[in-house]
Amino acid sequence: MRTLLIITLFVFSITDNAFCQTSGTIVMDEVVRVPARHEIALPDIPGYKTLKCDFHIHTVFSDGVVWPTLRVDEAWEDGLDAIAITDHIEGHPKKLPGQNHQSYEIALPVAKAKNIILIKGGEISRGMPPGHLNAIFVTDVNALNVPNYMDAIGETVRQGGFVMWNHPGWRKQQPEITRWMAEHEAIWQKGWMHGIEVFNEKEWYPEALQWAQDKNLAIIGNSDIHDAYNKRYNREQFPIRPMTLVFAKECTEESIKEAMFARRTATLFFNKLIGPKELVEPLVNQSIQVSKPFLYQDGFIYFEVENTSDIEFTLVKMGKDDSGLPEKTILPCKSTIIARVKQQADQPRTYSFKLENVLTGVEKPMELTFNIK
Amino acid sequence: MRTLLIITLFVFSITDNAFCQTSGTIVMDEVVRVPARHEIALPDIPGYKTLKCDFHIHTVFSDGVVWPTLRVDEAWEDGLDAIAITDHIEGHPKKLPGQNHQSYEIALPVAKAKNIILIKGGEISRGMPPGHLNAIFVTDVNALNVPNYMDAIGETVRQGGFVMWNHPGWRKQQPEITRWMAEHEAIWQKGWMHGIEVFNEKEWYPEALQWAQDKNLAIIGNSDIHDAYNKRYNREQFPIRPMTLVFAKECTEESIKEAMFARRTATLFFNKLIGPKELVEPLVNQSIQVSKPFLYQDGFIYFEVENTSDIEFTLVKMGKDDSGLPEKTILPCKSTIIARVKQQADQPRTYSFKLENVLTGVEKPMELTFNIK
Amino acid sequence: MRTLLIITLFVFSITDNAFCQTSGTIVMDEVVRVPARHEIALPDIPGYKTLKCDFHIHTVFSDGVVWPTLRVDEAWEDGLDAIAITDHIEGHPKKLPGQNHQSYEIALPVAKAKNIILIKGGEISRGMPPGHLNAIFVTDVNALNVPNYMDAIGETVRQGGFVMWNHPGWRKQQPEITRWMAEHEAIWQKGWMHGIEVFNEKEWYPEALQWAQDKNLAIIGNSDIHDAYNKRYNREQFPIRPMTLVFAKECTEESIKEAMFARRTATLFFNKLIGPKELVEPLVNQSIQVSKPFLYQDGFIYFEVENTSDIEFTLVKMGKDDSGLPEKTILPCKSTIIARVKQQADQPRTYSFKLENVLTGVEKPMELTFNIK
Amino acid sequence: MRTLLIITLFVFSITDNAFCQTSGTIVMDEVVRVPARHEIALPDIPGYKTLKCDFHIHTVFSDGVVWPTLRVDEAWEDGLDAIAITDHIEGHPKKLPGQNHQSYEIALPVAKAKNIILIKGGEISRGMPPGHLNAIFVTDVNALNVPNYMDAIGETVRQGGFVMWNHPGWRKQQPEITRWMAEHEAIWQKGWMHGIEVFNEKEWYPEALQWAQDKNLAIIGNSDIHDAYNKRYNREQFPIRPMTLVFAKECTEESIKEAMFARRTATLFFNKLIGPKELVEPLVNQSIQVSKPFLYQDGFIYFEVENTSDIEFTLVKMGKDDSGLPEKTILPCKSTIIARVKQQADQPRTYSFKLENVLTGVEKPMELTFNIK
Repeated sequence: MRTLLIITLFVFSITDNAFCQTSGTIVMDEVVRVPARHEIALPDIPGYKTLKCDFHIHTVFSDGVVWPTLRVDEAWEDGLDAIAITDHIEGHPKKLPGQNHQSYEIALPVAKAKNIILIKGGEISRGMPPGHLNAIFVTDVNALNVPNYMDAIGETVRQGGFVMWNHPGWRKQQPEITRWMAEHEAIWQKGWMHGIEVFNEKEWYPEALQWAQDKNLAIIGNSDIHDAYNKRYNREQFPIRPMTLVFAKECTEESIKEAMFARRTATLFFNKLIGPKELVEPLVNQSIQVSKPFLYQDGFIYFEVENTSDIEFTLVKMGKDDSGLPEKTILPCKSTIIARVKQQADQPRTYSFKLENVLTGVEKPMELTFNIK
Repeated sequence: MRTLLIITLFVFSITDNAFCQTSGTIVMDEVVRVPARHEIALPDIPGYKTLKCDFHIHTVFSDGVVWPTLRVDEAWEDGLDAIAITDHIEGHPKKLPGQNHQSYEIALPVAKAKNIILIKGGEISRGMPPGHLNAIFVTDVNALNVPNYMDAIGETVRQGGFVMWNHPGWRKQQPEITRWMAEHEAIWQKGWMHGIEVFNEKEWYPEALQWAQDKNLAIIGNSDIHDAYNKRYNREQFPIRPMTLVFAKECTEESIKEAMFARRTATLFFNKLIGPKELVEPLVNQSIQVSKPFLYQDGFIYFEVENTSDIEFTLVKMGKDDSGLPEKTILPCKSTIIARVKQQADQPRTYSFKLENVLTGVEKPMELTFNIK
Repeated sequence: MRTLLIITLFVFSITDNAFCQTSGTIVMDEVVRVPARHEIALPDIPGYKTLKCDFHIHTVFSDGVVWPTLRVDEAWEDGLDAIAITDHIEGHPKKLPGQNHQSYEIALPVAKAKNIILIKGGEISRGMPPGHLNAIFVTDVNALNVPNYMDAIGETVRQGGFVMWNHPGWRKQQPEITRWMAEHEAIWQKGWMHGIEVFNEKEWYPEALQWAQDKNLAIIGNSDIHDAYNKRYNREQFPIRPMTLVFAKECTEESIKEAMFARRTATLFFNKLIGPKELVEPLVNQSIQVSKPFLYQDGFIYFEVENTSDIEFTLVKMGKDDSGLPEKTILPCKSTIIARVKQQADQPRTYSFKLENVLTGVEKPMELTFNIK
Repeated sequence: MRTLLIITLFVFSITDNAFCQTSGTIVMDEVVRVPARHEIALPDIPGYKTLKCDFHIHTVFSDGVVWPTLRVDEAWEDGLDAIAITDHIEGHPKKLPGQNHQSYEIALPVAKAKNIILIKGGEISRGMPPGHLNAIFVTDVNALNVPNYMDAIGETVRQGGFVMWNHPGWRKQQPEITRWMAEHEAIWQKGWMHGIEVFNEKEWYPEALQWAQDKNLAIIGNSDIHDAYNKRYNREQFPIRPMTLVFAKECTEESIKEAMFARRTATLFFNKLIGPKELVEPLVNQSIQVSKPFLYQDGFIYFEVENTSDIEFTLVKMGKDDSGLPEKTILPCKSTIIARVKQQADQPRTYSFKLENVLTGVEKPMELTFNIK
């Protein structure tokens, strides 16, 4: 019990009354956060792992204000599986003169030690058109720093990289409406545009979702974080950070790359989930469990609806009926609600909802049906 | 898409700008809490379900300040499976003159509708000795309201009830030390004391734990709540309320009763878990998952330790070694930490810890061992 | 130092390591909330104190679920100065048979001990028309329990009471639109309607605001709380509860009554403030302080805007200019922001805003002007 | 009303239902934090302003992980008045080869625009003895980068700088006990040691407090932050960051310097306040207001104790009496509690407390007396 005795004395020293003691350093461990990875509850879907990724992140090596290793620590604490640090390829000459684009190299040892997949990348940052594009899974970022943007994109493709169009509806670059310009068409025609940000930082772009589906681009959502993450976002209300979901065969960089080129992606941002029906539906269906009725009383049936995920769902009743269900139901994360419906015990019925926070296309909320018998 | 249109107008009406509108009620749904049950992550153990119970609760029908139905709503929101409302059997004559002890009857319809198991009970409340005892699983609470406490206990047993000694170390009744008096011995000798509160409200009693183990009493922990729960407790820091864990074959009242008479209970309060080794160890072992090493580097092995439960664990290293592990490690709820140990890739090693927050007896922290190869 | 020694031992006993001790009750004071009144920062206005009041509250003596004393404790913790408990005058016969309307009498001793002004009242609760009306400052609530609502109102007035129309836009009673019916007109014509709820629970009623101003009724906002307050509302996001502000000469019941009959009231609910211009403007003007410029640089002037109150303000710039001010500015409670405007050091300018969250009438956001030189 | 119309459309676009819209960027402003300075409630004392300062801060220019401008933003949001960025003078050669110590120059424009006083400084970082010392109010940090530490200190003094000994009880440098070594004596004898950290990051050092008082050193407390502030600290529980309080004639750099050389400082960290009696007592006395009794009843007097500051105070009753006051009372920040004492209305009495969280010396909790009549 010797070890415990030592602990006893140690713990004693951090109590309030130790505030009065005459000697010895008092360590107040309770004032700092415990370093830990907070797992995000999102189910895998049949055949694939649901990987949580952020492919658009900045550091002091461009216009961000934090060191690359901090980005890995943040991603680990936030429960991500993979990130790409994508500093502007053109650099930030006045800020760190003479420094190369080296975020990847600096962050890599920490990523290995934290079991985070770090993907090499950079942001090709031009005026509109074509605006900003992320190149990830590349091997030599500095080789992309060439005057002509099409050359930069071509070099990305030559390196085996994946190209996504960033924040296509950013009002600073597209002040009036969000347009697919001739330059984007040209990149796409070459087969050089693979994905598009449907969400960026705090914005989402319905046009980008439509293009993603019309032109077979991967649906992407990223934080584009420049500030320290916990300083920028309202985490009390929104603990889960925005992300691209990649449905990969394994939790490896190769597998993520394969999934992204195969367009098996979706985006989750602040309880909103957008992605192809065939990926999003199984994820939601595994997140929401409907129990058998546990009570029949006075012509009503009672059953439980459990949400095992970290996404808050909003169910809107479809059609008019006499079930007594409310028009709108919130199903908070990791919670159960009780539904009470006017139904006879021996007469099965079906209840259908639109999930206001889950889109499988523009103006296409996912539908969800409960069969109760 | 007509339903959505309706919703659109509705949602529009709750936005800030609606603050300026000329007519129509504006409903600010965001200001109220969504009614939902927040599931507590605690694994079942082989052969048994881990049920979360609170067997000591008051209402306006004694010296509490809330209506019985609110107790069910609170229990449901807090993720409990079963509760007993245990108003003082002697009542509170000045408060509600002419009212019988009727908390159970009032709360029962809400309990059924919320799928909460409501157990009938009351508190036999006398000066010390013997102090206060809860009688639960009884059929007629008012029949226990007799002058002699032993008669009240006898009647409880006659009704098939379970008797627990409440807050045995409450300083108001045992001002100096916590004593097992002749009167408690007499009750126990008759076989009429079945359980004992090791935890009550904000207090825990090491003596009670020792007696529970020496005398084969069920280990119980209850809130003894009188106030509204969310007003009384510091929920931001301690979201999980104190409870008795019952390891039952099924989630039914009968099964809970069987488990309690069989002493298959433990108590969880504010990240502290106390119970018999054979029940607590499998619960903890299923909560803590150790990964295979994911990195070997510079003579160190890295592996992940995941806590899938809602209990925060505190690991204290046993013995002295050169592993580089810290003396004390916090493993927050639903989180993963990374351990880095000095170890060769081809030489398996074992690391042992005491769990400071898990007791299987007085001064017996549970031991936990990681086998890393 | 003997007292401190005792404390030392006490504090020692609540530390984590005490979890392993062999004897003695361990009191975990940190798990419960410290009982304290949280002062709300709202300035007085010239000539009057700004009193924080809730005039619509229920208990177990009608359809509420808490005991009257809890309502006083809640009000005290929430920083209110005065409350009226207004159980339905018609009672709740099935709930507590044989019990009179006695919330006031039960709550009064606690109110005195907490320095809370408790105003006697009740809710005259009928179908629409006329719906529900609160009678406060009455002397005998049970005397209002008469079949004819006009008689009940007349008796209120005879007792010197103040009558307010509750939740006039409650959709359960006014399903389509919010109407002023002949019955309301009749009450008003007699001079028997003195105030109207512009806010109730989570709803606000623009029509009621218009009527208040057209017909000289006091603007009222109340919680109409039935549940335990901390269980009903989302307090993390909205720590300040909804209230009627009464601008009274003194902090006494008489003074509140005088102020209400003189219509010196406003309502504050979830950062929204509605009231007469002559009361609301001085309150806001004292809450928002503009500093002298502290920096002139590159054609820009920098100054600070401090909000000393607990209301979050939303400023919307009026007109178009080249100042560089954003269209919309959030000024959180007890905070300072920095404004940067394109202005020469020697040329005074004026900047005008509408306060989106402060209304002095329907569609009349309060205007605020900064004179910067 | 044209401006409002625009706003209306804008706000409309960020509502949930906008989630379904077909075109146009949706900006979710609610997910990011509003940039604002959160004022800390601490009263000035007679003759001096109470300035909130942090004189020990790191950035990427040594072993920190954030850019200098972020440090200013953090300080501004956290309500500080002045900071010194004190990167290790010896630099971090492998990290940013070829970069000078330039945190001050990079941070200065932001500090000016935020109205934060930025003090030039650096950390002279050697093994023990003498360990680490901060040099602030210097003019040329790079000139301090000399092999001999005494030369570095001498140069600091030559530049008019202020020298403080950092974390004197840091176990990494003083593993067993906290010692004042011959080297420290030598610096002090020359008059070159002006202050000492009594608090650093999460540690406090009773020995340092004793030395500060014996040797007339300024009492200092700093964060020594390397990580992003909101990532490192547990802000939910401890919203106010650790700081040195400087009692200055004006809010200027010159005035801070004058005050520090005059030893008019204290430290506040996590509700603990340590400083000279003549500075700390007036601050506390202005923070705690005792009302006149508002109720005399049954031999008890009731009065209010209000805490207008952001410090939580812990009052421990001195001596034994029959007043009925609890042994320990928590007075949360910006709150009021009610004291109830056994006292006759016409007999004034005095109640004395030790403030467990306020020290005017080692084992010298500040005393506080209430005179109640």
